[in-house]
Amino acid sequence: MNIYFDHSATTPVDKEVLKEILPYFTQKFGNASSIHNFGQTALVGVDQARDRTAKFFNCEPEEIIFTSGATESNNLAIRGLLRNFKSAGKKPHIITSVIEHDAILEPFAELEKDGVEVSRIGVDSHGIVKIAELEKAIKENTVLISIMYVNSEVGSIQPVREIGKIIKKINNKKLTDWQKQGGKNRGAKPQPIYFHTDATQAVNFLNCDTKYLHVDMLSMSGHKIYGPKGVGALFVKSGTPISAIQLGGHHEKNRRSGTLNVPGIVGLGKALNLLDTKAVEKNNKKIAKLRDSLVAGIKKQVPDIVLNTYCEQAVPSHAHFSFIGVEGESALISLDLAGIAVSTGSACASGSLKASHVLLAMGIEQEVAHNSIRFTLGKHTTKEEIKKVLKVLPPIIARLRKMNPLYKDKK
Amino acid sequence: MNIYFDHSATTPVDKEVLKEILPYFTQKFGNASSIHNFGQTALVGVDQARDRTAKFFNCEPEEIIFTSGATESNNLAIRGLLRNFKSAGKKPHIITSVIEHDAILEPFAELEKDGVEVSRIGVDSHGIVKIAELEKAIKENTVLISIMYVNSEVGSIQPVREIGKIIKKINNKKLTDWQKQGGKNRGAKPQPIYFHTDATQAVNFLNCDTKYLHVDMLSMSGHKIYGPKGVGALFVKSGTPISAIQLGGHHEKNRRSGTLNVPGIVGLGKALNLLDTKAVEKNNKKIAKLRDSLVAGIKKQVPDIVLNTYCEQAVPSHAHFSFIGVEGESALISLDLAGIAVSTGSACASGSLKASHVLLAMGIEQEVAHNSIRFTLGKHTTKEEIKKVLKVLPPIIARLRKMNPLYKDKK
Repeated sequence: MNIYFDHSATTPVDKEVLKEILPYFTQKFGNASSIHNFGQTALVGVDQARDRTAKFFNCEPEEIIFTSGATESNNLAIRGLLRNFKSAGKKPHIITSVIEHDAILEPFAELEKDGVEVSRIGVDSHGIVKIAELEKAIKENTVLISIMYVNSEVGSIQPVREIGKIIKKINNKKLTDWQKQGGKNRGAKPQPIYFHTDATQAVNFLNCDTKYLHVDMLSMSGHKIYGPKGVGALFVKSGTPISAIQLGGHHEKNRRSGTLNVPGIVGLGKALNLLDTKAVEKNNKKIAKLRDSLVAGIKKQVPDIVLNTYCEQAVPSHAHFSFIGVEGESALISLDLAGIAVSTGSACASGSLKASHVLLAMGIEQEVAHNSIRFTLGKHTTKEEIKKVLKVLPPIIARLRKMNPLYKDKK
Repeated sequence: MNIYFDHSATTPVDKEVLKEILPYFTQKFGNASSIHNFGQTALVGVDQARDRTAKFFNCEPEEIIFTSGATESNNLAIRGLLRNFKSAGKKPHIITSVIEHDAILEPFAELEKDGVEVSRIGVDSHGIVKIAELEKAIKENTVLISIMYVNSEVGSIQPVREIGKIIKKINNKKLTDWQKQGGKNRGAKPQPIYFHTDATQAVNFLNCDTKYLHVDMLSMSGHKIYGPKGVGALFVKSGTPISAIQLGGHHEKNRRSGTLNVPGIVGLGKALNLLDTKAVEKNNKKIAKLRDSLVAGIKKQVPDIVLNTYCEQAVPSHAHFSFIGVEGESALISLDLAGIAVSTGSACASGSLKASHVLLAMGIEQEVAHNSIRFTLGKHTTKEEIKKVLKVLPPIIARLRKMNPLYKDKK
């Protein structure tokens, strides 16, 4: 039996989710844009999924755009918003953090090439965005701030709600000042700052009420929450000016073209539906307990390690270690041969020889960053699996260290 | 039992396709970018699908990019190619036809707004692109020609291979002239014209060998060929300079970011695998026979109609009619109530009150265009279903005409 400790990369589709999806392949197979009965039957499934998604994020169904995944959602949020500032004359300014996923960092870099001003905020040693630095970075021409909710590598929870409140305060002040100065008679309404969060790694564990978080846009993905791959969603608060980036067909109220992926959307809706507050609480408790026992066991049995996950402010799934003197990839492969699947960082960066930009941003040395192994637990993880890891891992680390002539045992 | 005559909008997933997909939801659920066993098992599925796709299009596996559907494939082909001419100084020129899908027309319009020169080629009364007009439109700075393989509304087959040959000849001549003039010593290699075709409606029926067609790029979709929704592919001939438009994660050799939709991709591959030459030939014959009996029956039983599908140069699935004096939507709804699903045009344009741009381009009057009903048959269509339509349709048309005070029976 293989053990899966890479739930941050992807999750198996929940059986209840699969059950809801299945009829949409062969019986309820219509195109949700078709007027006839086959189309309308498919649309009923989409509408239910949209309602479930809206309920989960505490928003209106019209504020949900279904996409092909979090990468598209992130691209749409950032580039779709900035398209509106293209010809406005003024150079817009946008802010993100240094620990975002590439699906945020690359659109930002692309916009920077196109003349948009970009600020990138640093993190502390726990991998948490420095709020004071963020506040200082905000300028008169700031139009977008995008900060992830949970970092995929170390699992650190970002202060999204606090940032949301800060932005709201600034926007409100701008508006009040403008009204005091005569409102419309004095000039155009001031430009608000829009706030986006990539919540891909948060949805399983944290409160994603968009009103509670004070976010204008939120990205998420199906396959990270026991739903299907190839589907995601973007919440866009009513009034937030985004333009489609995938053109042709006018689906999703002109914000995202392309035939709706009905089974995927139905699956996403069901996966969110399964994440009710009670289930999440129970699951978080269970996973945290298992994770803590994994961490305690590794700390006890393996010397010379660094725990890169700051468990006090991280999702319960993550335990990210550096095993000094051991190449992450070697440990990964050895564990895999022993039937245990882990990761060195994010799946998207697999095969890359560069040290993780997240760990480097946290101040971790390049060499130590290369020694990384990420364990991410899921809702099906068991005590027995933890036990197996704690049995298998220590001799693997010891063996790999022996093979490394540069490693000096500090004991 | 409901009868489905809207296969051009979408198709049910084939049972064999579904069977291949299923394990990838729950057992082989890994992220295909992960290094461990779960990831590699998923990758095996993707690799097989890529090989099958490449075999179908007679190209190399590396020339296939998996996307979320034909809309994304079209956007990536057109905008991804043009991104490379952005800063080249010279104003590029691109050509398409007036009868393309919005997923082509809109990216073209967007590029035109950004300063790219656009030519749009007309069609004859059969809905077939005028080759002479296309040839005349080609200029020194033409960099892209995009012509669909089969029109989704009337089913007309476009002379893609002939156009491909013309373009190849021009490109070869440019190259020979350049070499005669001294080649590299005299200046940069001449800019070739790249040729893209949207083959979404062709894959079920026609030869899609990319070498035979002389195309550099080809778009297709899973759900039109008894595969799943939410997945598509773009063939990009090696050496064709396209840049990703969805950024972050470096998947698909940096050409399309985002976690691979493994079940979708596996399903697409299997759907193509089922379309071997023999199966296609048999199917085409069967569907054409049924379509011809439908056309003959309607012609015989319903007066005052126009057949907009030129069956001599159309895919066997399509029979597109105008029933003079009958609003297409009214006929659609009446047929739907009688358990027969048809369309007024493309599903993507449902709900639009505008007459079809395809029919207008064919020279059909606005009023006649509004009288449209499209029947599209599929591989599961039966004789009995045709009989049922021929029984149900004539009285519906007669009743609707009676209700229309403007309709004067010409008999």
